[in-house]
Amino acid sequence: MNYDQIFEAAIDRLHAEGRYRVFIDILRNKGAYPNARCFHGHNGPKPITVWCSNDYLAMGQHPKVISAMEEALHNVGAGSGGTRNIGGNTHYHIELEQELAGLHGKDSALLFTSGYVSNDATLSTLARILPGCIIFSDELNHASMIAGIRNSGCEKRVFRHNDVEHLEELLAAEDPNVPKLIAFESVYSMDGDVAPIHAICDLADKYNALTYLDEVHAVGMYGAHGGGISERDEAASRLTIIEGTLGKAFGVMGGYIAADQKIIDVIRSYAPGFIFTTSLSPVLVAGALASVRHLKQSSEEREGQQAAAATLKRLFSEAGLPVMDTTTHIVPLMVGDPVKAKRISDMLLAEYGVYVQPINFPTVPRGTERLRFTPGPSHDEAMMRDLTTALVEIWDRLELRKAA
Amino acid sequence: MNYDQIFEAAIDRLHAEGRYRVFIDILRNKGAYPNARCFHGHNGPKPITVWCSNDYLAMGQHPKVISAMEEALHNVGAGSGGTRNIGGNTHYHIELEQELAGLHGKDSALLFTSGYVSNDATLSTLARILPGCIIFSDELNHASMIAGIRNSGCEKRVFRHNDVEHLEELLAAEDPNVPKLIAFESVYSMDGDVAPIHAICDLADKYNALTYLDEVHAVGMYGAHGGGISERDEAASRLTIIEGTLGKAFGVMGGYIAADQKIIDVIRSYAPGFIFTTSLSPVLVAGALASVRHLKQSSEEREGQQAAAATLKRLFSEAGLPVMDTTTHIVPLMVGDPVKAKRISDMLLAEYGVYVQPINFPTVPRGTERLRFTPGPSHDEAMMRDLTTALVEIWDRLELRKAA
Repeated sequence: MNYDQIFEAAIDRLHAEGRYRVFIDILRNKGAYPNARCFHGHNGPKPITVWCSNDYLAMGQHPKVISAMEEALHNVGAGSGGTRNIGGNTHYHIELEQELAGLHGKDSALLFTSGYVSNDATLSTLARILPGCIIFSDELNHASMIAGIRNSGCEKRVFRHNDVEHLEELLAAEDPNVPKLIAFESVYSMDGDVAPIHAICDLADKYNALTYLDEVHAVGMYGAHGGGISERDEAASRLTIIEGTLGKAFGVMGGYIAADQKIIDVIRSYAPGFIFTTSLSPVLVAGALASVRHLKQSSEEREGQQAAAATLKRLFSEAGLPVMDTTTHIVPLMVGDPVKAKRISDMLLAEYGVYVQPINFPTVPRGTERLRFTPGPSHDEAMMRDLTTALVEIWDRLELRKAA
Repeated sequence: MNYDQIFEAAIDRLHAEGRYRVFIDILRNKGAYPNARCFHGHNGPKPITVWCSNDYLAMGQHPKVISAMEEALHNVGAGSGGTRNIGGNTHYHIELEQELAGLHGKDSALLFTSGYVSNDATLSTLARILPGCIIFSDELNHASMIAGIRNSGCEKRVFRHNDVEHLEELLAAEDPNVPKLIAFESVYSMDGDVAPIHAICDLADKYNALTYLDEVHAVGMYGAHGGGISERDEAASRLTIIEGTLGKAFGVMGGYIAADQKIIDVIRSYAPGFIFTTSLSPVLVAGALASVRHLKQSSEEREGQQAAAATLKRLFSEAGLPVMDTTTHIVPLMVGDPVKAKRISDMLLAEYGVYVQPINFPTVPRGTERLRFTPGPSHDEAMMRDLTTALVEIWDRLELRKAA
């Protein structure tokens, strides 16, 4: 028994597959996003442009968010000092939960320390409360949903991505008297496509199933008030549970679910991942509250971001780059090989001051490695033209396949 | 299949057992801790004294922590905007990990969004990497360690609390060639007792087992630099992994592990709970960095807190209150009944302006429900005398059993 050898072998496997991850050390320049500093390599920090942040609307830089956090910091201090039950339940938490419930047209909401924890804690607890529950899960669901489903120990049926017919086949095959839960996402963040929410809710009605929708890449970004695809498609009231994050379009950190009061009370009372953890810092909660409120009444950021994404897709496409066809704000460029994706990313950073991370397994299936760009309202057209030129040069230098 | 009935029944069970949890809505007054405002009940916010915070040293209020967070907020903004691998790896994260590695005398450290996630992600990943691994777990380990062990799917052996003989029996019964991991805590937060770290490490050496020590209630509080019980007992170098939190004595939020470089690289590369989540906000990381650095060179807060705990234990004991015997900073008062514990807590809040949460199942075993006081350096002796008087009055009014 040599532990070191086992650990070394685990790391060697990653190197061999070309998917050992190197974290790039950066600092954003507040007020000048997407400009940032990179501490990677030699000769001190270098200026870079960030193209892969999930702070899609640059709300992490918004003056209202910054000043709300500053006020909370001076009002109550740094951390909450306890779990929600023991000293860590501040007035900020209550206000934000009310605001999020309102955003999704639900009775109640519940905060978690992250979107990952929301999914893991809620799905695992819900399936344990419902005896014999079967979860129907989209094959491209996020790792945190997969973790929650696995950790529940319940039966799982995986349906083909966004395939409503396959989902119906699986639902129809089960005992009508067994509890069922359909778990899916609205915007799939690596492919940029959108779920047929109404069609899935029709099946949930027909087969008496609960529904769980992950909207982490859509809240703040879609719908007149930022309620996500479920708001845009007027489907929120049909969904049992809507899950979202405060760490992407809202620009801060944390996760939540919104649902009717009874379900929120059950998760609040039974989920270890909610009960046994220090609650979100009131500083973060105050920032998120300002961000959610702002995006409820302002569509400027959403529109700017959609326009930027459309422009970048057009530029990539005109240049013959293999941009994937998406209906959302996500702009993925298919590479199909982990070593090449990493090489392109390294060249962009070292030679062009462009920061975009390669996306490899297990985030996407092997053979579909890609670069994923997230232009926001602050990425202007000159930046996009520079980026396109850089990519075309690299595509030529590495003799990569262009779009068909 | 009526989902509502199942959810209602789940909540009814909690009411029937007297352990339905009501979160008390509070805001601390920065600079005046342990004074706070309570929004519970009628007539607007009322002044209260907080007696149950895990911000043990009031570092969440420390000027160095507040100003570091303010600076980061203005320097880089609110959230990190991504996972550690994709845009969310800031220079603050790297600096804090180096600082924490140094605190525990290890090569490397790794940040997580919470202590709960550190335990869950590390234990579940480690046991999956080591084929056939058996985890030996203290029976009073925290829910997050239990979650990690269960989620790993590996074999588990539970040893009686702090019982080294029982642990040896269990270790000796297994195949010497199978990977083994002993998981335990240094300070058990609800009983306030301490693990025999050296004796457990002796067994780990003898049976070739790895060790995992949860120090969340000890980091910042014990040892000359706040490295925890493992620093105080000069045992840090004998432990494979030390886990800690930034949300208790350090006053902010987040969790971490410290270990040799190879193990950190394995967890960093394989743990879904680390990989697939937005990294800690740089604002929190900057605050934690200031806090860890301060407590490395200042023992004033630690000494003040130990003195306060000793005074409160003495006052309780002299008044005949059933204070549990502890060797640490934790001051638990045994009640032994969930309904009575809740009743005492409600009376203290409504009539005396004292905020201390009842501790009930599943946080402690049924029949050992208690009140748990965490006096800090800012709780003065007058506050402690008031508290003791209030408790004695309530003990008389409710005809509760005094100490033997």
